[in-house]
Amino acid sequence: MENFRFKNPVEIIFGKETENEVGAETRKYSGKILLHYGGDTIKKIGLYDKIIKSLNKEEINFIELAGVQPNPVLGLVKEGIDICRKNNIDFILAVGGGSVIDSAKAISIGVLYDGDVWDFFTGKAKPSGALDIGVVLTVPAAGSESSVVTVISNEKSQLKKGFHSSLMLPKFAILNPEITYSIDPFQTACGAADTIAHILERYFTPTTKADLTDRLCECAIRSVVDNVAIVMKNPEDYDARAELMWASTVAHNGILGTGRIEDWASHKLAHELSVLYGITHGAALSVVFPAWMKYVYRNNIKRFFQFAVRVWDVDPCFGTQEEVAVKGIEHFENFLKGIGLPTRLKELDIPGDADFAGMAEKELQWGLLGNFVKLNKNDIVNIYRIAL
Amino acid sequence: MENFRFKNPVEIIFGKETENEVGAETRKYSGKILLHYGGDTIKKIGLYDKIIKSLNKEEINFIELAGVQPNPVLGLVKEGIDICRKNNIDFILAVGGGSVIDSAKAISIGVLYDGDVWDFFTGKAKPSGALDIGVVLTVPAAGSESSVVTVISNEKSQLKKGFHSSLMLPKFAILNPEITYSIDPFQTACGAADTIAHILERYFTPTTKADLTDRLCECAIRSVVDNVAIVMKNPEDYDARAELMWASTVAHNGILGTGRIEDWASHKLAHELSVLYGITHGAALSVVFPAWMKYVYRNNIKRFFQFAVRVWDVDPCFGTQEEVAVKGIEHFENFLKGIGLPTRLKELDIPGDADFAGMAEKELQWGLLGNFVKLNKNDIVNIYRIAL
Repeated sequence: MENFRFKNPVEIIFGKETENEVGAETRKYSGKILLHYGGDTIKKIGLYDKIIKSLNKEEINFIELAGVQPNPVLGLVKEGIDICRKNNIDFILAVGGGSVIDSAKAISIGVLYDGDVWDFFTGKAKPSGALDIGVVLTVPAAGSESSVVTVISNEKSQLKKGFHSSLMLPKFAILNPEITYSIDPFQTACGAADTIAHILERYFTPTTKADLTDRLCECAIRSVVDNVAIVMKNPEDYDARAELMWASTVAHNGILGTGRIEDWASHKLAHELSVLYGITHGAALSVVFPAWMKYVYRNNIKRFFQFAVRVWDVDPCFGTQEEVAVKGIEHFENFLKGIGLPTRLKELDIPGDADFAGMAEKELQWGLLGNFVKLNKNDIVNIYRIAL
Repeated sequence: MENFRFKNPVEIIFGKETENEVGAETRKYSGKILLHYGGDTIKKIGLYDKIIKSLNKEEINFIELAGVQPNPVLGLVKEGIDICRKNNIDFILAVGGGSVIDSAKAISIGVLYDGDVWDFFTGKAKPSGALDIGVVLTVPAAGSESSVVTVISNEKSQLKKGFHSSLMLPKFAILNPEITYSIDPFQTACGAADTIAHILERYFTPTTKADLTDRLCECAIRSVVDNVAIVMKNPEDYDARAELMWASTVAHNGILGTGRIEDWASHKLAHELSVLYGITHGAALSVVFPAWMKYVYRNNIKRFFQFAVRVWDVDPCFGTQEEVAVKGIEHFENFLKGIGLPTRLKELDIPGDADFAGMAEKELQWGLLGNFVKLNKNDIVNIYRIAL
């Protein structure tokens, strides 16, 4: 096991009708806030009205900044920074999924910095402080409500980049599974894929011994697999929606990565697809991860054998260790297909003659990708080709 | 799944040589501290010297209060409160296992309270504040380094009682598995039993659906079972010691109980044995828990079936659902015996004519015990009898 530090002080407020507590929770930190969200969905499902009512009850002033898109962009982040500065706002309430929360996080560190907030993403500067953030989660997927990461797309440079800092951890995150009933099957599947991907990025590690977290990762994946199947049949199964929602947070709050070196190559390969082709993050991961597995598994067959046996119940006596390992990858890919996700680039209308080499070069400008196997340009091109 | 709130802001600093960071970590909070510990063990293993060196390096003044015993007592807590008050101490560094940490927690809330600190345990008062606490953990078992609980024994009233408050959560906890190499096989086994018991108190729940945490509980137990076996053969296996240490924290930091109603009857039955007969906590749990299981399993055979199949790999087709369930309890008891723990009261020299009825009455003065099944006097006496 690797030495590690772990701390996650986000207060999770989980369950039915918890969105009505947002005013009282916010009041602990501020009386004047930026209310940050995406499109009209939160209005259609009645969430917006509940939040406004709860904020008004606590006499909290708010300025709205809507319009966060999937793969949130730097332009809107800068707009949010300006609004906060001009109005002396010290708290951001993010109502939405990972994109809205990531946008709020970037605003929170940008407000207190004199330079360009993109400097944090390129490593030119480090934040010294951040505004407080609260979250009402609407989409269980990104785990941003309890993670130290934000991922922002720069429209000009066509770069999608992540930045890590515990300064951005929300003070609280409200999670009501009922809010997720209206998420359609495709987005539900994308959320499950994202959750599983966050676990897999930790599971596939060069750390040779980390038994407890191995097992925690394995059983968290199993829970997502079982519960997404229930939700596909009955979108209003409260308990199954609750499992998916809580799993998406646990997957990315850091505990499953304790004592292990993490990988994160697949996420970078998926980010590039999202930036260039506007692919939903979960769908991009669903294409990239099986291809990555097929390319790297020979580097540690034992680990993929374990993945096959413990996560996918492949009979350990089914064949050679390698055959069992391959069967596990097959099960994973079939699971993704089964919940309606793409597993090939062509399903995303990405052509076989796409500039994989150019994409790889862009991804590699900050160094080799991943840790389970360190990927170079040739590796990345090969993985995209396997995904064709 | 039940509605819940979850927050655990303790910073875990885990790994080799991390005890040398204690001075720098403490300095973030205070320059004048109470150094609280038990007996001479920390001196024999060289830990005391390292800590003094690290504190001196940061020029931190400290007053020592040693002498914490297993099942920490109110008398020493009061002594600690006096020392802190007289010397304007605002930080307690607990170096030890659960007993030392629990003692430090009780001191931390007592210093800022005008009345008798025991008032918190009897429900007469609630703390409004607490001194900051730091921990260097020496025994992985109680999970107190990251739990909201302290359990103190009142020498006069012969009561062992717990008190819950997030105010007492340590600021940081330093966990170096190397420090645990010298823990003897019996105490190692007691620690494993305590860790597993903390998980079981959450696992056996009246909540009908909580799949993710069910699975997290199951695999955490499996990890402890596997790794304690390794440690019994090789006490200096770093990775196995690390798994046991991290599992003891994860078992009790609250995450495994999210969304579930917990039980805790067995702990109360075990506490009574510790108070009256001076039994080590883990050993008392090892006797009580199998007896509790045998008494209650018919109330929810399906849950014990799941316990048998998922934790103990009992063949689900082995017999009827009940036969499989019973086999699981048998496996658990055999596991405890296998690591050298008692599973019967007679092994603890507790006579068959002990005053079980009187013990039950004492335990019931604050209401029925447990939630999986609510135990009355008759139930408690029966469980002790099963344990004979």
